[in-house]
Order: sequence, then C-alpha cells, then structure tokens
Amino acid sequence: MNLKDEVAIVGIGQTEFSRGSGRTELDLACEAISAAIEDAGLDVGEIDGLTKYEMDGTLEISLVSALGIPNLRYFGQVGYGGSGQSSVVQMAAMGVATGQCDVAVCYRAMNGRSGLRLGLSRAGERAVGAFAYTDPFGMVSMAQRLGMFARRHMIEYGSTEEQFGHAAVTLRDHAQHNPKAIMYGRPITLEDHQESRMIADPLRLLDCCLESDGAVALVLTRADRAKTLRRKPVYIMSTAQATGPHADGIVFRPSLAVAESPLAARDLYARAGVGPGDVDVAMLYDHFTPFILIGLESFGFCGPGEAGPFVEEGNIRWPHGPLPVNTHGGSHSEAYVHGLTHVAEAVRQLRGTSTAQVDDAEIALVGSSVNQVSSALILRR
Amino acid sequence: MNLKDEVAIVGIGQTEFSRGSGRTELDLACEAISAAIEDAGLDVGEIDGLTKYEMDGTLEISLVSALGIPNLRYFGQVGYGGSGQSSVVQMAAMGVATGQCDVAVCYRAMNGRSGLRLGLSRAGERAVGAFAYTDPFGMVSMAQRLGMFARRHMIEYGSTEEQFGHAAVTLRDHAQHNPKAIMYGRPITLEDHQESRMIADPLRLLDCCLESDGAVALVLTRADRAKTLRRKPVYIMSTAQATGPHADGIVFRPSLAVAESPLAARDLYARAGVGPGDVDVAMLYDHFTPFILIGLESFGFCGPGEAGPFVEEGNIRWPHGPLPVNTHGGSHSEAYVHGLTHVAEAVRQLRGTSTAQVDDAEIALVGSSVNQVSSALILRR
Repeated sequence: MNLKDEVAIVGIGQTEFSRGSGRTELDLACEAISAAIEDAGLDVGEIDGLTKYEMDGTLEISLVSALGIPNLRYFGQVGYGGSGQSSVVQMAAMGVATGQCDVAVCYRAMNGRSGLRLGLSRAGERAVGAFAYTDPFGMVSMAQRLGMFARRHMIEYGSTEEQFGHAAVTLRDHAQHNPKAIMYGRPITLEDHQESRMIADPLRLLDCCLESDGAVALVLTRADRAKTLRRKPVYIMSTAQATGPHADGIVFRPSLAVAESPLAARDLYARAGVGPGDVDVAMLYDHFTPFILIGLESFGFCGPGEAGPFVEEGNIRWPHGPLPVNTHGGSHSEAYVHGLTHVAEAVRQLRGTSTAQVDDAEIALVGSSVNQVSSALILRR
Repeated sequence: MNLKDEVAIVGIGQTEFSRGSGRTELDLACEAISAAIEDAGLDVGEIDGLTKYEMDGTLEISLVSALGIPNLRYFGQVGYGGSGQSSVVQMAAMGVATGQCDVAVCYRAMNGRSGLRLGLSRAGERAVGAFAYTDPFGMVSMAQRLGMFARRHMIEYGSTEEQFGHAAVTLRDHAQHNPKAIMYGRPITLEDHQESRMIADPLRLLDCCLESDGAVALVLTRADRAKTLRRKPVYIMSTAQATGPHADGIVFRPSLAVAESPLAARDLYARAGVGPGDVDVAMLYDHFTPFILIGLESFGFCGPGEAGPFVEEGNIRWPHGPLPVNTHGGSHSEAYVHGLTHVAEAVRQLRGTSTAQVDDAEIALVGSSVNQVSSALILRR
C-alpha cells in the first residue's frame, strides 16, 4: 500500500498576512479553514480530520467548538516547526487514505510578529535535546544556528553572500506579482541585500524570512470524491520525511555540510515514480535564503555545490527560469506561516491560478531542508 | 483502504516502574525501546518510524542520536495526554500501512513522580482553549476537572462512591499478581478506599491513578513481516479517535454525562467487524476509577448507567469475571505511563503471557474515555 494519487488537495484558504492581525490565532485559524472549505465547496460540518503543527497553539478541540464540527474522527500533529511543512499534509493524507476520516484539514495559524516571534532568542524556554549544549554558549536564535550551516556551505562549496542575495532578490521579485504578499510593492536590489545589516554572520537581514501574522488551511479528501468537487483536484503523488543519523541540532554532527533532505528526496521520488527533471515548479522552505540553495541540491535540481551559480544564473526566476521557485514570494517576501503558504502556492500553480503562473505546470515539489529534519511532497494536477 | 490486520505489534518493552527513577526520560525511553526491539528480535538500526505523545519531552531526534538510527523516515505525535493512548499506536500503524516506514516504534517515557507531576495544579502554564475559562475559578487540577464528570455520572445514573471503590479494589487485586506493579504486595479493601482522603469530591485518593516514573515502548511492522519474527504477532484490527461537538474542556458542554467515546466505539467496531461481545479482555484508561465505569458504558459492555452494578458484581474481576479489565493493575495500581502500559498488557494477554492471563484470549480492546477526546484499539492474536 502506498499513498500515491489516493488523496487530493481540494481546497485552500488563507487570511490576510500582516505584521499585526489584532486577532487571536484561533480566529485566524477559523477564517482560513472556513475559506478553504468554501473553496472546496464543502461544509464545515463535514470536516472530520484535523492535523496541526505541534507549535500551533490552536487546539483541534477548540476548533471543534468554534467551527461546529460534530464528530472529529482523526487528528494528529507534527513537530519540528517548518520541517513539518509537508508532514502536516502527509498526516492529513494518511488519515484520508486509511479511512480514518473523509475530509481532513491541515492548518497553521500564527501571530508570528505580534505574538511569539520565533526569530528571537528562545534561550531558557527549552531544556530538551541538543539545545542544552548550545544555549549556554549564546547560540540562542534560529539565525545563529542556521547561519552555521550557511557558512559551512560557503566553505565547502564556495557559495557566496552574493548568491544568497540573488535568491533574496528573486523571491522579492516574485512577490511583486502577488498583491497578498507583505512585500508587494517593495522590490529590492542586490545592493540592498549586500548593504542590509548582519543578523548572524553570514546571514543578513535580507536573508531572513518575514515575521508575520496570518493563517493558511488546506482541505484534503479521497481522489474519487475530489473529482466531484468544485476545484480541479491536486493529487498527492508522494510524501516523505527524513532524519539522518545525526539529527539533533548541530552539536553531534560530523559535518554541517551533510543535510537530511537527500534521504527524504530519495524516498519522495521513488514513491512518486518521477525525478527532479519532471518537476515544473518548486516551493522550497526559505527561513533563510541559503536554504534555497541547500534545497535545490538536496532535491536533486543541482549537484552538491552547484546551487549558488544555478541561482545566480536566474534558473529559479519566473517567468524565464526553467525551475521557478517560490513563485508567491515565499516566507522571505510573501509571509511566514511556517511554510504552509508554500503548499497553497503549489496548489495554485497546478490549478493555473498563481500570480506568477508557470505555463502548463503539471508537477510541483514542496520541500524543506533544514539540515535536521526534512519533509517533502510531490503534487500533480 | 483501511488498516484492518495490515499491521502487527511484534515487540513490547518497558523499564522498571518506580517513584523515582534517578534517570533522565531520554535514558528511560532508550531502555524501553531497546527492550521492545530485543523482544521483537530486530535491531535498533532497523527502526525507521517513531511516534510519540506530544507531552513526551524526549524528541525523536534525540532518540536518533542516542540509539543510532541511521534514517528515520516517519514521525508524528499525538496530543491530549492519555487520550492519545491508542492514537500513538494508530499513528505508528498508519506509517507502516502506507509504506512510510517498515519498523515503527511508539513510546512514552516519563518521570511522572520525580519530575513533572501531572496530577498537581498546572494553573498558569496554559493559556489555550477552555482552561482560560476554568483556571481563574480554581479548577486547576485533573482531579477537579474530571471529578465533575464523576459527580454527574452519580447524579444521572445513581452510581456510587462504593462502586468506584469496587473498581479500585479490583485493579489493586489484579496488581497483586504482577510483580512489576508498583502496588504489588499492597492490596486494599473497600474500607481502605472509603476511608482514603478526599482529593476532589467525589474522587478520593484511592480513586486516583499513581504518579510514577517509567517508560513503555511498542514495535510495529507489516503483518506479513510479523509472521517471520520471534513473537506471536498481535494484529491491529481497528483503531479510532473521536471528539464530539463539545470537545473543549467542560465549559461548553450541554451535559457532562455525554462522553465522546461512544463515537470512537462506533467506528472502532465497524472497522474491526466485531462487537463488544467478541472482546475477551479490556484495558480501559483509568486516570480515575469512575472512568472505568464510563469506559465500560462507552465501549458498549454495559448500557448507560449500568456499569456501577456491573463492576460491583465482579464482572471485570480476573479470573472469574466475564470481562477482566486492566489485568496488569492499570494506571491505578501498576504504573502511570499515560496508558501505554495498557497496550503492552493487551499484547501480553494475546500472547498468553499476562500475570493474570485470561483463558484463550483472542480479542482485546484498549480504550480511553476521558469525556473530551477518545481513542481506542481492537487487537487480536
């Protein structure tokens, strides 16, 4: 048994993205879920599965009461923040595929700017895992931790800050087509990137994703039912998750150049029966721009160390690049909703409704490469 | 597609249960997982799936490093504490059944007495969901909250404190056969129960589960592979989860007599193709003894309101009762490891290796009825 083409994404919904929603995360979640259900042409009362990010403070049981869900029959959650970008969809798909539920919704609602800012130091909140070995030495923010991987990529492969800058400019340019992006109307140049202040060497301000408020939700159901619904179904060809043998933070790793995501990529393509050359558009997790490069290499779009020049040469730039990446602007320039925005944009591409539409897009990849835990999806129209 | 008989539990493991392990939860988890893998006759390096309780502080990535797991390919978690007793097994089974992994382990490790004591007030830690409406009024412990349901059962159906006491004495008697139970060698009488101090009316000390340190782990793999392994496979016939329309705490409920678990029971039996009369032995979540009664009713072993007399008449008592319940002593008298002990005991019953073995046990039910979120399993040998 596998999941291939058993389940489809049939509805997407989101709230406004902002720097201050002025509303609770529960309220944001309800709006995004209701919008996604409306998009699917279903009724909220038909929802019988909910999957969430562990970090999402909006509990399923709160949504049951707030939305009026008579009988939730399936629920589960995924850890590791943005690494769960695809896991949360996989978990929903598994519930549908194995008959635990008929209509599953995955969601992420966060006041990521006006509430808990994930980019700040979180020292002292955590006593688990490898953080205990790094927090006392002052490595207390995501930028500090992930900057180490970026630096290693530069040392190992010769990638440059300018190449990170090209990724930043490309994503910002994509956002200029997307009126819902927070950075719509605010293009940047390579010089802006290079002059932006250093956050955690080698990561500059314009390498970092946004901090934003907003919510995204997706509706999944069985492929046979999907055919009867309002929107063109987007089928889940495969899903994968992976850690390698040194998953816990960075302290136990023999090399920071070793990512986990090639292990996810191997399973992902094998299960889907396609390869990187079949992918028309990719949504890569972009908490920091160097991870666009690492993602391109991890998911086989470039060889190791080749992603810097690949980005610099415009290969990920819409409309002329052969592999447009993050056509919504990504977490870098649309909004940071822990990457679920990327899955929504992949769906729009395969429906033909993106604001930076790739001609005749048939197959999309969504993947996170955070060098600790990876998850990925291949979708087709 | 459904899960019926696709996946088997092929290994169980646990640590010593104590009031103070003197060890980290990570250490406990590693011991239980290693024991379960050894029991299955597999190698730790073959583990490629891990599912956990959200509340478990031991991350999968820590286990990867500590145990030496080369490539974890599936992971997920379940919320709602002991309500996830069966969900964590379901999630592991789904990973195996859909080909996301080959060897899945679910685990729970907790220093529940020497570390975080779940029975104490947790006011102030939480700002989510319905707690915000009850904590300010002083309803800050599980006993206070769940005592409300117990009292309602008494009002609605005439069940009595003595009937709760009969459940307590029965579970304690079962533990007298189980040398690994914390309460081994410490039987109680109905008088002891009635004289024990009030914790949260109507719940007395001897209605409450233990607070204990320890860990439990289970190993799952595909049914076809299970047949080639060391132990007699225990097949998962069905799994179910449920909330009703008023899942969030108690403040939004029209009646405290309405449980969610009958909704889980409906799906559970339908998916397994068996009924309550086919079940030889039941493991019911027993954070507080009245929930043994509510569980018996919810899973159809008695009609509504009939469980008090059913327990009093000895029907759940091993060896002569027709439906022995919690033959290991349960959370009440063996150890409290968030109910995963119950799944391990169901496996022992179906292997024929319980210390209170039910003759020729073929089918076991594991179920939680916490009147908020429910999960359940039916297993067969």
